[in-house]
Amino acid sequence: MAQTRPLVTLTTDFGVRDPYAAAVKGVIYSINPDLHVVDLTHEIPPQNVFEGALFLAGALPYFAPGAVHVAVVDPGVGTNRQPIVISAGDQYIVGPDNGLATLFLREHPMQQARIISNRKFMRESISATFHGRDIFAPAAAYLASGLRFEEVGEELDTIVTLPASHPKEEAGRILGEIMHVDRFGNLITNIHRSTLGERTPVLITTGHYCLKGVRQTYAEVPSGSALALFGSSGYLEIALNGASAHDALRLGRGDSVTIEVTSAD
Amino acid sequence: MAQTRPLVTLTTDFGVRDPYAAAVKGVIYSINPDLHVVDLTHEIPPQNVFEGALFLAGALPYFAPGAVHVAVVDPGVGTNRQPIVISAGDQYIVGPDNGLATLFLREHPMQQARIISNRKFMRESISATFHGRDIFAPAAAYLASGLRFEEVGEELDTIVTLPASHPKEEAGRILGEIMHVDRFGNLITNIHRSTLGERTPVLITTGHYCLKGVRQTYAEVPSGSALALFGSSGYLEIALNGASAHDALRLGRGDSVTIEVTSAD
Amino acid sequence: MAQTRPLVTLTTDFGVRDPYAAAVKGVIYSINPDLHVVDLTHEIPPQNVFEGALFLAGALPYFAPGAVHVAVVDPGVGTNRQPIVISAGDQYIVGPDNGLATLFLREHPMQQARIISNRKFMRESISATFHGRDIFAPAAAYLASGLRFEEVGEELDTIVTLPASHPKEEAGRILGEIMHVDRFGNLITNIHRSTLGERTPVLITTGHYCLKGVRQTYAEVPSGSALALFGSSGYLEIALNGASAHDALRLGRGDSVTIEVTSAD
Repeated sequence: MAQTRPLVTLTTDFGVRDPYAAAVKGVIYSINPDLHVVDLTHEIPPQNVFEGALFLAGALPYFAPGAVHVAVVDPGVGTNRQPIVISAGDQYIVGPDNGLATLFLREHPMQQARIISNRKFMRESISATFHGRDIFAPAAAYLASGLRFEEVGEELDTIVTLPASHPKEEAGRILGEIMHVDRFGNLITNIHRSTLGERTPVLITTGHYCLKGVRQTYAEVPSGSALALFGSSGYLEIALNGASAHDALRLGRGDSVTIEVTSAD
Repeated sequence: MAQTRPLVTLTTDFGVRDPYAAAVKGVIYSINPDLHVVDLTHEIPPQNVFEGALFLAGALPYFAPGAVHVAVVDPGVGTNRQPIVISAGDQYIVGPDNGLATLFLREHPMQQARIISNRKFMRESISATFHGRDIFAPAAAYLASGLRFEEVGEELDTIVTLPASHPKEEAGRILGEIMHVDRFGNLITNIHRSTLGERTPVLITTGHYCLKGVRQTYAEVPSGSALALFGSSGYLEIALNGASAHDALRLGRGDSVTIEVTSAD
Repeated sequence: MAQTRPLVTLTTDFGVRDPYAAAVKGVIYSINPDLHVVDLTHEIPPQNVFEGALFLAGALPYFAPGAVHVAVVDPGVGTNRQPIVISAGDQYIVGPDNGLATLFLREHPMQQARIISNRKFMRESISATFHGRDIFAPAAAYLASGLRFEEVGEELDTIVTLPASHPKEEAGRILGEIMHVDRFGNLITNIHRSTLGERTPVLITTGHYCLKGVRQTYAEVPSGSALALFGSSGYLEIALNGASAHDALRLGRGDSVTIEVTSAD
């Protein structure tokens, strides 16, 4: 079903104890009170672009064409990094050109990127330290209200991309790492199901732990036991049934994870 | 006034640092962008079904008939626990059959429960670990968009209920316990005003503390002093005027509370 | 563009782990499901009226005329403090008369204040401890739905104001203090850009630190270095480029900040 009511989502590291996210909403609703502004999160760890990228890759695939996503984790605000709009998968991502969309774009190729340079898409007065309010919020509001993407500004050939953290392969083993610990203490690796192709995982090793094979659900192992499974986003996770793998196994972001696989044939 | 615009609320233990709640919203808005999705909370403590039940009992009574509530605290995801929709008080609760609605249903009797088995109410591909996104979100979206409750799936005679934690009575005393500590440090007991009937509370005892009678407002005692009152949901609370009873009295969930009452006549 | 769809925003100290904010939303949507309820924050520190006032001053200026803002940080609930509606800048603020609007009203003068005394603007049953749900939420919902401000109740000549924390001036120096630490660790002072008039800041002193002049952006100093700038709300901030000034400088709320200025001519 197509998007009929214009949707603007917000993904930021602003938190909600300060009025920054509220100001962004005020600006959007002042431009067009009939838009629908949807909080995705304001709890990206401060200035952590990688965590922002991971969040967007996990959230945006579930939105319909036409959605406009404001994504602001912006340690470079006030430098010469560009404010941009990216179109991909018939959705728009509005934010700083610092790699925030990198992980989403891996599976949803970029259609076009444009610098926000048309003053019609900005607030009248622009602070040097809060482009979320003064550039990204109005650009998103105008885009969602019918101003054309082509008018945002000149096209960009390339955008900033975060350094890849792809798993490596050697002699029947896939070498990856933990890239995120979720709220449940699940350890989410950078090894996507698609990396394995037709091959079957036999042994998963991380820290002092060795897990046989990959499960379908947490409940396949006894309560409190560790397991590996491909999570709801397709990445290999190390988890505990009913408890936090992060707490129990004392593993976290950056720790290595190895999969031994059977050959595909 | 009746519900004219379809409302879907969300109560989960997903937090907002991970993209799980955002994915749920994406799925709902993709099915029907004219729905209105309202966050109640994503901060139920991870996998704590009782706290989820307590939250729903405190929130749902204020919504109008027709509202559809997604409630997901789901430690048993991927096991044989059933995905269900409950109708009660002319509202719908969509989630796992694990007792989440128990406390709400005590005062708003269940009209009917149905297993979600009709594939029309689900996403095409269903992961084993994220039914919030793949079953509960779409079921809620379709229900709020006009698909009929009767089509969700077969009727269930009984649903899972959390073990009761009702107060006991003996010889002019009501024996209860603290079931929740709120953000202000108020200690909320499982003794509801209705338990007392016509009887008047004379003495409330908890830990080393003894409180005479029940107050109407915090300000009836000096600043920093302890008091007992029936809170806005009807349960007996132990509170401090202007400070946290939890911090000051060093009492918390599970601690016992006794009320001595006068006889009703 | 004028406000066409009625907007009700929420600013509270309720948190979202308890069902208080959810109950407020239920009450508003039950009165008028076509309103749009927007969370600004529920994370004002418990009963901290000053932090609430600071938040409102930073958020409300970005909303359009006609918006109705529910603002509840209410340590005096159940005492004789009045429930009021303030009109200012063609917006409405609904909450307790305890100074919450003080900082917003400094730059957006009050047009009128009224006590909420008309029972038509309240829920039928009113608890002594939760006016957010029983008085402020319905008053806001009815106001946003077309009931007239003049019908809320009798006009109030004066409302409660928080004690000023204005900077002092002496012999070419402005003496202020840190009034808030934001999520990024920026130290936000009570010295507004307008206090300086035409004068130029030469030296900013706080704790053991001495900063020359005021910058435009964080990136003007090396990564990890301290700087002073006028933030997006116009107040002088002490910040670190890419890190938390709060953590690194070990300064926080109440610490003094001095600016030496050139004379205006």
